[in-house]
Amino acid sequence: MKIRLIEVAGSLYGGAMLNNIRIVMVNTSHPGNIGAAARAMKNMGLQSLYLVEPKVFPSAEATSRASGADDLLAQAVVCETLDEALVDCTLVVGASARLRSIAWPQLDPRECAAKSIAASSNGAVALVFGREHSGLTNAELSRCHYLVNIPTNPDYPSLNIAAAIQVIAYELRMAIRGDAALAKPDSDEESLATMGEVEQFYAHLEAVMVESEFLDPAKPKFLMHRLRRLYNRARLEKQELNILRGILTAVQKRR
Amino acid sequence: MKIRLIEVAGSLYGGAMLNNIRIVMVNTSHPGNIGAAARAMKNMGLQSLYLVEPKVFPSAEATSRASGADDLLAQAVVCETLDEALVDCTLVVGASARLRSIAWPQLDPRECAAKSIAASSNGAVALVFGREHSGLTNAELSRCHYLVNIPTNPDYPSLNIAAAIQVIAYELRMAIRGDAALAKPDSDEESLATMGEVEQFYAHLEAVMVESEFLDPAKPKFLMHRLRRLYNRARLEKQELNILRGILTAVQKRR
Repeated sequence: MKIRLIEVAGSLYGGAMLNNIRIVMVNTSHPGNIGAAARAMKNMGLQSLYLVEPKVFPSAEATSRASGADDLLAQAVVCETLDEALVDCTLVVGASARLRSIAWPQLDPRECAAKSIAASSNGAVALVFGREHSGLTNAELSRCHYLVNIPTNPDYPSLNIAAAIQVIAYELRMAIRGDAALAKPDSDEESLATMGEVEQFYAHLEAVMVESEFLDPAKPKFLMHRLRRLYNRARLEKQELNILRGILTAVQKRR
Repeated sequence: MKIRLIEVAGSLYGGAMLNNIRIVMVNTSHPGNIGAAARAMKNMGLQSLYLVEPKVFPSAEATSRASGADDLLAQAVVCETLDEALVDCTLVVGASARLRSIAWPQLDPRECAAKSIAASSNGAVALVFGREHSGLTNAELSRCHYLVNIPTNPDYPSLNIAAAIQVIAYELRMAIRGDAALAKPDSDEESLATMGEVEQFYAHLEAVMVESEFLDPAKPKFLMHRLRRLYNRARLEKQELNILRGILTAVQKRR
């Protein structure tokens, strides 16, 4: 039943499911990061931002970096404590850049998205991001059901907080897309040339190669074979085939 | 043998594979975005940054936003044209926020990462990002084998350019984590033509079309654009390119 719900999420309920997922930023120092986070959220379809003890808010710098996402800033809920921001949530996931001395169940961003989407149909979900330099305290982490860790270069692991929110929000967007998006054709199938049309093109191409003495009919080698392989790989569209036939005809007329 | 190599990529050669993947930023307006992009890249283990006609570079703002990734800025390659940045590449993927009038093969960021990792074992890969407000021009897109599109909220689709680079780089990191075995190469990557070689072919093809009066240089329409789309889709091998050049030369001699 739950799986069925998730399957139709992309087409029907995706937006509604994301509405039940909030981003919680704890004790953020730089207002520019709050603005950039709002933009990243709105780009991916998230809209609920909670700010726990922000150093500076509201702020012109946040509004500027938010670009067209200043509506999220205007609606942002400012809280005095983390608990206040989490009170109605049924799933809490904390972002963590480093391994902790106390082991906590860990998710990667993709797993985090899957769990969050699944949980969001039955309750509010909070994804919690800590301070720019020191992350979440152990007391804050202890509020979380899971930690989410973004895979990084071990020599330079510390993401900007808005960039981390961008990655987590992107995985949420990918999770509600629906598998149908994966099945999209590379090109418009209706416009593809038929095999009969393609064979006429090969015959025309071969004739031009013989006329120009590039191909010796007595020693054809693998020339046509290689050209067939190339054009078959591309899967010619009708319009492309017409252009190629046009070039061949033009070359023949000029001679 | 090739599959075996890719299987161990996550543990041993992941870094080396990422070294063959460059980020190309075209005509970037805001130096802060260049700095934020460098940080996003280094966080995910990328190190090769190419800047085509940046408005301001180097810049104190870029260095500041790069945080500890200023080494990437110091090593960045500044180019006058996009072709210069792509000349030695065998796979080029352009970031595109919007649907184009002429369809081009599309990837999502995950597919982009799989293809890039697969290709990077045998040649240089370029991921190209356009201007903050207007993206890539049609002429620039026509250099690309694929476009990559980040799924977004349709009501607010325009990502900050450094945020877009963060998402694409994150998927590369995820791809080399261990399930990189999924990234099978499409064709024999070793034998692919470089973009420099392919550009020479396009110039030769265009010359023959003009000489045979198939193409009117005064009214070129979308002819070269459509032909680029066809041949880029096929990803020409060196040997195929030699055959096509041979046909063009033979046709010219006979006239």
